[in-house]
Amino acid sequence: MFTFERTVAYSETDRMGITHHSNYVKFMEDTRVAYLRAIGLPFEKMEEAGVLSPVVSVNVNYKTPSTFADVLVIELKVAKYTGVKLEVEYTMTNKESGAVVATASSSHAFLYKNKVCSLKKVMPDADELLRKELELSK
Amino acid sequence: MFTFERTVAYSETDRMGITHHSNYVKFMEDTRVAYLRAIGLPFEKMEEAGVLSPVVSVNVNYKTPSTFADVLVIELKVAKYTGVKLEVEYTMTNKESGAVVATASSSHAFLYKNKVCSLKKVMPDADELLRKELELSK
Amino acid sequence: MFTFERTVAYSETDRMGITHHSNYVKFMEDTRVAYLRAIGLPFEKMEEAGVLSPVVSVNVNYKTPSTFADVLVIELKVAKYTGVKLEVEYTMTNKESGAVVATASSSHAFLYKNKVCSLKKVMPDADELLRKELELSK
Amino acid sequence: MFTFERTVAYSETDRMGITHHSNYVKFMEDTRVAYLRAIGLPFEKMEEAGVLSPVVSVNVNYKTPSTFADVLVIELKVAKYTGVKLEVEYTMTNKESGAVVATASSSHAFLYKNKVCSLKKVMPDADELLRKELELSK
Repeated sequence: MFTFERTVAYSETDRMGITHHSNYVKFMEDTRVAYLRAIGLPFEKMEEAGVLSPVVSVNVNYKTPSTFADVLVIELKVAKYTGVKLEVEYTMTNKESGAVVATASSSHAFLYKNKVCSLKKVMPDADELLRKELELSK
Repeated sequence: MFTFERTVAYSETDRMGITHHSNYVKFMEDTRVAYLRAIGLPFEKMEEAGVLSPVVSVNVNYKTPSTFADVLVIELKVAKYTGVKLEVEYTMTNKESGAVVATASSSHAFLYKNKVCSLKKVMPDADELLRKELELSK
Repeated sequence: MFTFERTVAYSETDRMGITHHSNYVKFMEDTRVAYLRAIGLPFEKMEEAGVLSPVVSVNVNYKTPSTFADVLVIELKVAKYTGVKLEVEYTMTNKESGAVVATASSSHAFLYKNKVCSLKKVMPDADELLRKELELSK
Repeated sequence: MFTFERTVAYSETDRMGITHHSNYVKFMEDTRVAYLRAIGLPFEKMEEAGVLSPVVSVNVNYKTPSTFADVLVIELKVAKYTGVKLEVEYTMTNKESGAVVATASSSHAFLYKNKVCSLKKVMPDADELLRKELELSK
């Protein structure tokens, strides 16, 4: 299981005194970026191959508030990968208290020359990597 | 149907040249804030009554990209209201092209003195308003 | 004098209960964008001409806090324009109380094919417009 | 000299392909927060003492663009400290290229019970720490 740590910034809180809920969508992306780099598929590699991976949907369930200076431990796992679609799941935990702060998921497509593509065709090595990751997460 | 217009700011775009996906969660909140004000239930009124309404979940489906200077027309409707939970749905359309940019939903609880509460008990007039809105949206 | 109104969003507040200070830099940009459109020099026109206008410096003096739902009236005036550099000044006032919330300035260069350029050479009509604006602001 | 490292997030870029200029104001705050923690003056300590430290002004000079995944090395030094006002200077360098990305400064007041105060009176130990830091930075 891939884990990533992210400290909540002052600018990410709101007047309720807690982390503004929109920021968790950024935390998910930060985790995804670190994960893809860790498995050998950094964005530069995808960009060089002319592949973009836009976000198709996000879903966040807020469980416990977090706030400034809290360290979130974010677990990421590949929930589904079909060659044309990637689904990722996240569990965010407060490092100090152990409380689950949020669970979330996001799904992603792959674009080549602005058209939806099969990653297997345009980046077979990336396809291989994600299939392996899917297996590992089962 | 309540509608709200929101122009995408330069700072809300990303290096893919489009509106960063996390911003749609902010657009939802901006719409909700305008909506609650429009129906006579502005945040000041809830704050005075000691009621907070945290976000319990958000869900966004991205359909077509938008970018800097695009005007989004955001429709909001109350999908569910039980007295302790509120569910809201959003449809965001590009004003110029008419394309659906995103559909989304969010759910909300009510807190009184940091405890989940029934809005009917702590703010009966607000409860009445939301029940009426639920009826209208059917 | 050009004026622009901007309502503070919930997501723009912080746990001190006020508008996070970084957001004023965004408000300045929003005002600049609206101003350039108003004088007939929208970003699309500059982009078509291959001209980018990066921010060279910003300076903000915070006078009175603002918070969620406050409407800021932002005045903009061209303080200096030399053909290669543009300096803009801002005064942000709370619409309801009339209090000055912040004064600010920003300076901007012009790039053509990634090199600093004279706007007079690459976009003579834009140069004309900005010289006129400078005169008007005196 | 205190240094802090900060990686630019995808969400912090804009459609020009570079880090949006407003984010540097957040990087300054992130650095300040880490610095105050490092010298033994974390925000929790100030909050417990009832002291707030609002930003009075910021100034940023943009030298070289940065973008997604760049690591910025941010140096911070105390430029001035009078007991009622704190001035901090920052130099942000691209870790890989060594290029100076931005230089910046910010000034801060101290509030006790919503009034400007002398830190020496309300938090003598914090005052001591900052005076020492000022000496060290000379």
